[in-house]
Order: sequence, then structure tokens, then C-alpha cells
Amino acid sequence: MAEAIYPKLAVIGCGLIGSSLIRAARAVGAVGEIAVADASEAVRRRAGELGLGDRVTADVAEAVQGADLVVFAVPVMAMGEAARAAAAGLKPGATVTDVGSVKAQVAEALSEALPETAFVVPGHPIAGTEQSGPDAGFAELFHNRWVILTPQRRDDDPYLEAVQRLADFWTALGAHVERMDETHHDLVLAVTSHLPHLIAYNIVGTAADLEEVTQAEVMKYSAGGFRDFTRIAASDPTMWRDIFLANREAVLEILGRFTEDLQALSRAIRWGEGDKLFELFSRTREIRRGVIAAGQESPAPNFGRDRQRS
Amino acid sequence: MAEAIYPKLAVIGCGLIGSSLIRAARAVGAVGEIAVADASEAVRRRAGELGLGDRVTADVAEAVQGADLVVFAVPVMAMGEAARAAAAGLKPGATVTDVGSVKAQVAEALSEALPETAFVVPGHPIAGTEQSGPDAGFAELFHNRWVILTPQRRDDDPYLEAVQRLADFWTALGAHVERMDETHHDLVLAVTSHLPHLIAYNIVGTAADLEEVTQAEVMKYSAGGFRDFTRIAASDPTMWRDIFLANREAVLEILGRFTEDLQALSRAIRWGEGDKLFELFSRTREIRRGVIAAGQESPAPNFGRDRQRS
Repeated sequence: MAEAIYPKLAVIGCGLIGSSLIRAARAVGAVGEIAVADASEAVRRRAGELGLGDRVTADVAEAVQGADLVVFAVPVMAMGEAARAAAAGLKPGATVTDVGSVKAQVAEALSEALPETAFVVPGHPIAGTEQSGPDAGFAELFHNRWVILTPQRRDDDPYLEAVQRLADFWTALGAHVERMDETHHDLVLAVTSHLPHLIAYNIVGTAADLEEVTQAEVMKYSAGGFRDFTRIAASDPTMWRDIFLANREAVLEILGRFTEDLQALSRAIRWGEGDKLFELFSRTREIRRGVIAAGQESPAPNFGRDRQRS
Repeated sequence: MAEAIYPKLAVIGCGLIGSSLIRAARAVGAVGEIAVADASEAVRRRAGELGLGDRVTADVAEAVQGADLVVFAVPVMAMGEAARAAAAGLKPGATVTDVGSVKAQVAEALSEALPETAFVVPGHPIAGTEQSGPDAGFAELFHNRWVILTPQRRDDDPYLEAVQRLADFWTALGAHVERMDETHHDLVLAVTSHLPHLIAYNIVGTAADLEEVTQAEVMKYSAGGFRDFTRIAASDPTMWRDIFLANREAVLEILGRFTEDLQALSRAIRWGEGDKLFELFSRTREIRRGVIAAGQESPAPNFGRDRQRS
């Protein structure tokens, strides 16, 4: 075990990501003491039972007291309020980050709420599952996943050192770290995460609402492809509502591109233009090979899930 | 091992499904002799090396000679030609089926091409992976998956017996069998398989074509949801081109519903209607629970693929 990168960690919000971060940090000895704050009594009770924090409280200001790193792991639209609650308790020189899926709006909310004595370094680990809550977390969640940091436009040494230390922390947890402008982050994630979720939620909703095909039929025959979409359409509703509200512009922009392309595809089907279909369907194979080569996906057929069946 | 249900099986087309069917049938002793025909020399060579057929040939009429069950496992638009090639060699009283993902058009093509002495029972196993070819097949592919048969409107005993025997054959391979009208099949599959593939191909194409976000970024940050879509967008291009051409009407009908719903969702995002988003996102979770309860999906987070990583 290495020496702790942060003697004291405070995690505000103990869901899938918050509790995974705690488990991962503890597993590699990246932190000393851990304080947890969560607004939900049920979550606090489970966090206590699971031994996730040395201290578990409803009081954000109390949790952050003396913390060297504060991580906000609450839904995107709740970041501002959490930061305001933390402001009074923050130790000067503390590093403050978050794990939200939208960065421009969150960066602004954190900067507004927090004192200048804090080093604010917004962040986003590109990792998760469709499950939620403290029980869903696991220490390996960030292994080989990317964490994007969107530092403020500051180049004073103490700030740059704080950014580097946060990058080292994530590296210790098994992740790769990239730095990026927050506006670019929001566009990239609109493509690789927000639009996929929107599409998945939408198709599952469409299928559920049909009159000619029953929900029972949809479920029975879902192995034809539909079941894949149900996974991300089972993600946390509050978290995803907030993401779409906070990243509206980029999501609508990318959705517009998607819709244009879909209309062209629809037209090709209507007019029986097999060559156009074949051309697209051949091109998309390459992208999967790239995703696998980038270490972000299992090469096993059907994600490996069916070979496990007996 | 039970007694063979069919003393001789002929499989026309030795890709993922054809080769899986052969492996599965042999594993449970459901057939005696096996003949394989495939138009591709490379596939025939691999089929020979893998020992998939007692006889491997390019000649469909030769392969079906003396067969009690003939299975067409070629792309949907190639079914008619394969059936015409088989017609001359067919034994009177043979059962002929297929594994195509579209049933109305295939049923018509088979009926037109084949002699009345054959029992034509179109079929569709709702099973597969994103991989193709004889090496991709495996015996367990049909375990706990549904096979839909769309029998002709005949109620003579020999035909009904042929249908029942084919159902028994699939059951022996580990599948569940359902009978259905071919038009309804095509609508159900448009929802549970064809639209999901269309959407997946489309979103991967959209992401690949963006200028503001590079393909490398799309691949690196794909764990946010996008990677899920790349799986089915890696499916066989010929097979899928044919499906969209052959099931045009049902696909366009379901795509129309999807697009309407997506426009409503887009509008809700634009106007910041968080309640509408939350309502949909909560509803769709139930559908995944149903898919898991129906035995068609792994309950493990992220399809279980990430826990396997070290």
C-alpha cells in the first residue's frame, strides 16, 4: 500500500459512483479517513452497514470538515446546492471535484458556490452500470476507464499541483486521466453517452406503448437485439433527467444529426436502396473493432453473457 | 442420447446460425447424417475442417438428397434462389424450414419454389451474436431462446405432424417454440430486433461522421453507453440489408412510432420539462426487469462484462 494521496476524503452522495470511489480508494490505500454525506436516511444506513465511511452524516458542512479532497457525487442539478452546503466547512487549500456527466454547467455551479481558497477541478469518470445506490458500487468500476478532468483556466502552481494530485488519485484507482475543455467534454459525452441513453429510453418507451405488440411479446423475443437497449434504459431516472436538462444544447445538436441520418436511412429502406444500407452496415463494424482495441469493450460475442448460460 | 428426430439433416448456408444448429443437433443426437451446402468456397473449407457435415458441397440439390429435414440458413433475400436450387433434389415428405428473420416474404418464396410434396414450415430462432461465419457458431446458442414457427394454413394430419416434429427438434436443441402468424411475426420482430439494429447502425454511423468529435474520442469514451450499440452494429451487413428490404413495411411503421416519440422527447428537453423525462425514464426500468424475469437477459450489471476484467 502506498502512502495516502489524501489524508482525508469526503464524498457527498453515496450512490453507485460515490460508493465505488470509496471502495476503490480504500482498496489501494489512496486515502486515510473517509467521511460520507448523503441526504437519504436509507442510503446513510446502508453506507454505515457497509462500512463505507468512518463517519456518515446528513450534514455536508460537517462531512467536508478537514477534508483534503471533497468529491461531489450527486445528480448534476443538485451539485450547486451541495457545494453551497459545503462552502462553510471547507478547509482552505482543499481540492474539490465532482463526478457529474455534464461539465460546463457543473463547473459554473461549483465555482460560484465555493470559496477561492478551494482548488476546484471538475471531473467525470466514464464508468458506471445500470444499477444505483451504495450496494451497486464496486472497487473495480474505474479499472481501465477514462476520467476526464476539466480544470479551470488557471496556471498558478498550487492549482496545477492540485490538478496533478487529483490525476494521480484517479490513476491510483486504476483509471486513465485526460484533461479537456468543459464545452468539448459536453459535446463528446453527448455523443458517447447522452444520445445513446436518450435513444435507449425512447425505443424502450416506444416498444412498451405499442398496441399491436404486447409487452410480454417484447420481453420474450428481446434477444433479437432489443434487450441490449433495456440495460441503459434501466439507469437512474433522476440522474438522467438532470443530464438532459444540464446538457440541453449539445444533446439537441447531436440528436439533430442522428435524426437527419435516420431519415436518410428510412428513405433508403423505402426506396429499396440496398447498396446504401450495405455501405453503412459495413462501415459500422470498424467502429466496434476500434472500441475493443481501445480496451473499452469485451471482445466476447454477446458481451460474453450467453456463453455463461448453461 | 435420444433416437434421431431426423435421420438425415441438410443445412443450406453454414454461417453462425447454420453451424450452431448443426453443432446443437449433433450434441443432443437429434439427427443422424448431416449434409451441408454453402456457396462460399472458404466457408465450405472451414465447415470441412470443423467437421460440421458428413458431406459438404456447393450443390444444394445434392445436399438435400434424401434429407428428412432441410434448413435454409442463408440471407433472407437469397432464400428463393436456394429453394429453387433444392426443389429438384427434395425427397417427397421432407420437412423444409428456414431461420430467416423475416417471415411473410420468405414463406412466400419457399412456397413458390418448392414442390407440394414437401412440408414447408417457415421458422425463426430469436438467437444470435454479432459474429458471423462457421467458426462463430456454438451448440448452446439456442438454449432458453425462442423459436417462432409460422406454419402454412393447412390442417391435414401429415402437415400438422411435420410441424410438431420440427417443434420437437427445436425443443431438443434447448429452445422454446411458439407458433405465430407470419405477418404478426414480422411486426413483433420489427420492434424487438429490426428497429434496434437500425437505430444502432444509425447512431454508430452518426458518431463516426462527426467533425467536432474524433473517432478516437468516440472509442475512448464509449463506456458511457455508446459501446453497447456498437455490438449489434457489428452484425453481418448482407443479412441486415436483406432484412430491411424484406420487412420494409413493418420496419417503417415501427420507425415512424419511434420517431414521433423521439420528437416529443426532444421537445421536452428543449423546454426543460423534467417531469416528462423522469416519467419515461422511470417506466423503462420495468421493461428490463420483465426481460430478465423472462429469462432473456443476464441480471449482472453491464451484462457481467466488467466484473470479469481484472
